[in-house]
Amino acid sequence: MTDPRSPDPARLSLNTATIRKQWGLGEAIAGCARHGIRAIAPWRDQLQALGVSEAVSRIRDQGLRVSSLCRGGFFTADDALNLDDNRLAVDEAAAIGAECLVLVVGGLVEGTRDLADARRRVADGIAALGDHARAQAVRLAIEPLHPMYAADRGCINTLRQALDLCERLGPDVGVAIDTYHVWWDPELEVQIARAGAAGRILAYHVCDWLQPTEDLLADRGMPGDGVIELRRLRGMVEAAGYDGCCEIEIFSEKNWWRRDPDEVLRVCVERYASAV
Amino acid sequence: MTDPRSPDPARLSLNTATIRKQWGLGEAIAGCARHGIRAIAPWRDQLQALGVSEAVSRIRDQGLRVSSLCRGGFFTADDALNLDDNRLAVDEAAAIGAECLVLVVGGLVEGTRDLADARRRVADGIAALGDHARAQAVRLAIEPLHPMYAADRGCINTLRQALDLCERLGPDVGVAIDTYHVWWDPELEVQIARAGAAGRILAYHVCDWLQPTEDLLADRGMPGDGVIELRRLRGMVEAAGYDGCCEIEIFSEKNWWRRDPDEVLRVCVERYASAV
Repeated sequence: MTDPRSPDPARLSLNTATIRKQWGLGEAIAGCARHGIRAIAPWRDQLQALGVSEAVSRIRDQGLRVSSLCRGGFFTADDALNLDDNRLAVDEAAAIGAECLVLVVGGLVEGTRDLADARRRVADGIAALGDHARAQAVRLAIEPLHPMYAADRGCINTLRQALDLCERLGPDVGVAIDTYHVWWDPELEVQIARAGAAGRILAYHVCDWLQPTEDLLADRGMPGDGVIELRRLRGMVEAAGYDGCCEIEIFSEKNWWRRDPDEVLRVCVERYASAV
Repeated sequence: MTDPRSPDPARLSLNTATIRKQWGLGEAIAGCARHGIRAIAPWRDQLQALGVSEAVSRIRDQGLRVSSLCRGGFFTADDALNLDDNRLAVDEAAAIGAECLVLVVGGLVEGTRDLADARRRVADGIAALGDHARAQAVRLAIEPLHPMYAADRGCINTLRQALDLCERLGPDVGVAIDTYHVWWDPELEVQIARAGAAGRILAYHVCDWLQPTEDLLADRGMPGDGVIELRRLRGMVEAAGYDGCCEIEIFSEKNWWRRDPDEVLRVCVERYASAV
């Protein structure tokens, strides 16, 4: 019997970061099919390695939904706001029919300490990418990152801040909400409701916070192994009207990246039902 | 010639965590005197090891100001809100004439995931400690901790959240602002101004964010070695009316805790002038 609180199995999406050390995108697509996972979220390096047209063909063959493409962003990487690469990311997202392009916006400009300047560049970068994204019908999903990544990966660090930025940018942009990045936020429930009311929840990523956490980047937990109230958080996004996929995305140098990827997918399916 | 933007040398305080692996409190007091540091912020374990009356005597002999006592809190540690130990902390703060008692409030109740419950317990604990603190004329300083400590050390994670709690608790409580914990906050300037307007900035701790950071707890940086705009942040707290001490507090397993403590104090004095 299915737990009535369990999520819809059809909405589980495999973010390929979860098995990136073991599998390329082709293997991940086949793995999803084998394990009954109906959606996938590829990373661009793996998409490029397989080739976009080959990926499109294999994804179509398996009938997979593409919940997002990871990732554009890093607007602070150069003075041109990294726009050439970001336009390519939009093209790739359009080609594979991704429901959004996730933006990891970038941290401080290298060698500087000016966080306000970094945030201005990010706003400028997303604005500059907007026309191209609209033309390709690709929605841009700003992913607020945990504050511990403010310096090096993403200087948008709360959902409130991301939504404030969305309001300046217009109706086409939204947010990717990742439990790992936002679970601690005292304003989480109200900001999720705000995001939902504005139709801006474009993606939902699930990952658990391990206690203790031994590495800032790659010691993330399988749902159920950590301290986040994942069922409660899913309730919040669903109450806010979100009915898209739940991507399981885990960076785990010491554990999940070392396991048999078929075991990882089996556990993802189980934990999606029991813990998400 | 003194840089006009440099802080007042008399307001540098040594938080003894900075040399805790090398020195006990007695050596730290003598070290401050040797290096011309006019204020100190002891940790309770070191205070207890030296003995409160002996510490009072030595601090008085050197004419040191006591900018804070670190730390009370951990209200989520037991069902009695850790109140026995917290009352003792208040007594110790009063005995040494500390300008405030810093509260590291505690994270999740062990074995649970209920962050809202932890936050309620913290609010209850600080409220329950209030009468005793008022009777001893000890001000309680809630220290919002970086969100990466929400699970295990402190579930008050932004200045906004701490100030909202202060408003519920009354005029006697305030905040300890530590650059390491708050530098990333997009609301920092407005919340510092709010704290200052309410007379709630009770302590200011200075520590830098290293890039990369290799350990979540004890890889913190000497002012000037990281990416925080420390001068700008000091400007914010001073513009908000704060005229108390700047405590240098650094947890550094791999670097500063391994160095000659006299060298550490010399560098603290230099960096206070050049980078804070």
